[in-house]
Amino acid sequence: MSFQAESAFAFEVTHRSGAARAGVLRTPHGSVETPAFMPVGTRAAVKAVTHRDLLDAGVQIVLANTYHLYLRPGGDRIARLGGLHRFMGWHRPILTDSGGYQVFSLAGTRTIADDAVRFRSHLDGSEHALSPEKAADIQAQLGSDIAMVLDECAPAPGTPDAARGAMERSARWARRARDRFLAIRAGDVAGLRVTNPGQAQFGIIQGGVYPDLRTESVQRTSEIGFEAYAIGGLSVGEPVEVMYEVVKQTAPLLPDDRPRYLMGTGMPDDLFECVAQGVDMFDCVLPTRNARNGQLLTREGRLVIKNARYAEDERPPDPGCGCYTCRHFSRAYLRHLFLSQEMTAATLNSLHNLYFYLDTLRRIREAIVFGSFEKLRQEFHRTFSRRPLTT
Amino acid sequence: MSFQAESAFAFEVTHRSGAARAGVLRTPHGSVETPAFMPVGTRAAVKAVTHRDLLDAGVQIVLANTYHLYLRPGGDRIARLGGLHRFMGWHRPILTDSGGYQVFSLAGTRTIADDAVRFRSHLDGSEHALSPEKAADIQAQLGSDIAMVLDECAPAPGTPDAARGAMERSARWARRARDRFLAIRAGDVAGLRVTNPGQAQFGIIQGGVYPDLRTESVQRTSEIGFEAYAIGGLSVGEPVEVMYEVVKQTAPLLPDDRPRYLMGTGMPDDLFECVAQGVDMFDCVLPTRNARNGQLLTREGRLVIKNARYAEDERPPDPGCGCYTCRHFSRAYLRHLFLSQEMTAATLNSLHNLYFYLDTLRRIREAIVFGSFEKLRQEFHRTFSRRPLTT
Repeated sequence: MSFQAESAFAFEVTHRSGAARAGVLRTPHGSVETPAFMPVGTRAAVKAVTHRDLLDAGVQIVLANTYHLYLRPGGDRIARLGGLHRFMGWHRPILTDSGGYQVFSLAGTRTIADDAVRFRSHLDGSEHALSPEKAADIQAQLGSDIAMVLDECAPAPGTPDAARGAMERSARWARRARDRFLAIRAGDVAGLRVTNPGQAQFGIIQGGVYPDLRTESVQRTSEIGFEAYAIGGLSVGEPVEVMYEVVKQTAPLLPDDRPRYLMGTGMPDDLFECVAQGVDMFDCVLPTRNARNGQLLTREGRLVIKNARYAEDERPPDPGCGCYTCRHFSRAYLRHLFLSQEMTAATLNSLHNLYFYLDTLRRIREAIVFGSFEKLRQEFHRTFSRRPLTT
Repeated sequence: MSFQAESAFAFEVTHRSGAARAGVLRTPHGSVETPAFMPVGTRAAVKAVTHRDLLDAGVQIVLANTYHLYLRPGGDRIARLGGLHRFMGWHRPILTDSGGYQVFSLAGTRTIADDAVRFRSHLDGSEHALSPEKAADIQAQLGSDIAMVLDECAPAPGTPDAARGAMERSARWARRARDRFLAIRAGDVAGLRVTNPGQAQFGIIQGGVYPDLRTESVQRTSEIGFEAYAIGGLSVGEPVEVMYEVVKQTAPLLPDDRPRYLMGTGMPDDLFECVAQGVDMFDCVLPTRNARNGQLLTREGRLVIKNARYAEDERPPDPGCGCYTCRHFSRAYLRHLFLSQEMTAATLNSLHNLYFYLDTLRRIREAIVFGSFEKLRQEFHRTFSRRPLTT
């Protein structure tokens, strides 16, 4: 039930409850308890939150973005500065995505071919090319603990042909990405400044909403052999039930002794549903983005802080929450900060939402350990999930 | 050398060095060591900085703004919520300005008459009137530890006539403000929810850059009798040398046993010069505003973080500084955050600048206690003051 790579990377499942697992992921920068949530620090910073506030909320690993950091300040520069951990002053684990998703969603005119995807920077229009090898090189410069392969994510809802095309290209790219990664690890890439020799690399499963494509993607990707595998191409617009179905079908196909990472998902109830299918790692912009938009996530559902009903409400956002925001501030004050467009509104709301995510995952881990996961899942669903907004 | 009002308000000078004084100000919400710097929390929040970060930087008292809080969320509302301390979750001393300065600088069309100043809200154009009594009432609702009287601040450079007019009106208003304040304290204002019975009230000296007017303003204001006195109407556009001259002339006229508060000033070297004239309290938006604009204040002067020379500079902003930002982050990273318009750029820069101000005042207090103030003042001037930018 445990797996140890040549690198400092390792994963151990310590407890199970049905398909749900609790475990520990070891990286060169420390351990992460799973199931784990990774706040998104796109440009080497989680928006509106300082590192010490992340630590205070219980964050053990953050995600940073290869596309953004490649464009600014640049992989070369970060490598010269000793790698991403040192550059951003975050000394715990970091996962970097490959930049593929951003190239497809953010960049200007782009042309995709098998050798590479060519695009224009959303910052200054400059031309760039990203190949599986280049994405591996940049991440070696960044020195994240977990690097992701470059993949092609077909937009949803896509035709089976588009999904097959993206899945097949992703599989071909995965092979090249792994070859490059192993060459880097072996020291065979001249002139590349590698800042974290213990880096691991995850493959990504594509295939859209089509079970046969997902199955084929798992086969083709896992035969290459990565430290672990991610389920990509979801939370891109498909109905949430469809997402659950794909996870339910795909997760059990992945090696049991490796962590499973569901990319870009989701709301807290989605975490429960996907943990129940055996997912171990999550990232999502929702807790921080919703916070900036004045949406606080609580056990009772979403709370829209600008609502007039909170103008003289002295309760904290979530009376059951132990975060800094809930221990010190009322809905009335948070509403005032939001309406006044004070920057601390974003900070205090983000602190709460991140704490809520991290605390929910702590409760999930405990429930798996103590055999009460199913009970917790149903209780959470009853109070939180898919109910009409509590505004 | 000490003064004890009927209220919980008291001031004691504990050490002197020339005209400079170190002391302790006691308020219903705790003590403040003087000379003290008050970060500006205009709308019940210091921009981009949480309360715990303020405490971490050593902040003992903050300033909030009557004009802004009156317009939103309203004095009535804050009173119903138990007062400003409880509303904003800041349980240390608070000083509120009277709103006069903002009415004159921010509000739309305004007409000033002896009874009151009428203006339109900068938020929604609604019509309002602010009188000396109303300003006292709102501050009683807010329950700040120190309330300021409503004054008229003539723009600089002003004619002697304009300065005299503003000074005389301020003196008449000060009398009315004090009468109202004493009526509130005696419980004689029906229907007003008073949230801090121990509130003190400071008078404000006007008179522009004219020594005779300043002298007359001191006489007329101090004969009314306030817990303490502020020097107003400076840092409004006049040359810094002129500001120094007015402080030098005015400060010694103020009662020796009361704290002296210089409003709206200034850069760190200004603090040294004005402490040397016997000033005890300061507030200024510069540390936080400059921070948001990417200017870091250091012992060596101003550091403009976006400058290309810092792109790979691994040093903290100020190698001699003990703040969270300087202990954890490099100029290279802070430059990246600023160029990326990350909100944490504002936060980390503000934390540093506030710490720099607070630390400078700690050093000033120590130097006064140990008789080395003049030495410290000269040393600080040599490294920091009025030098060309270090960019």
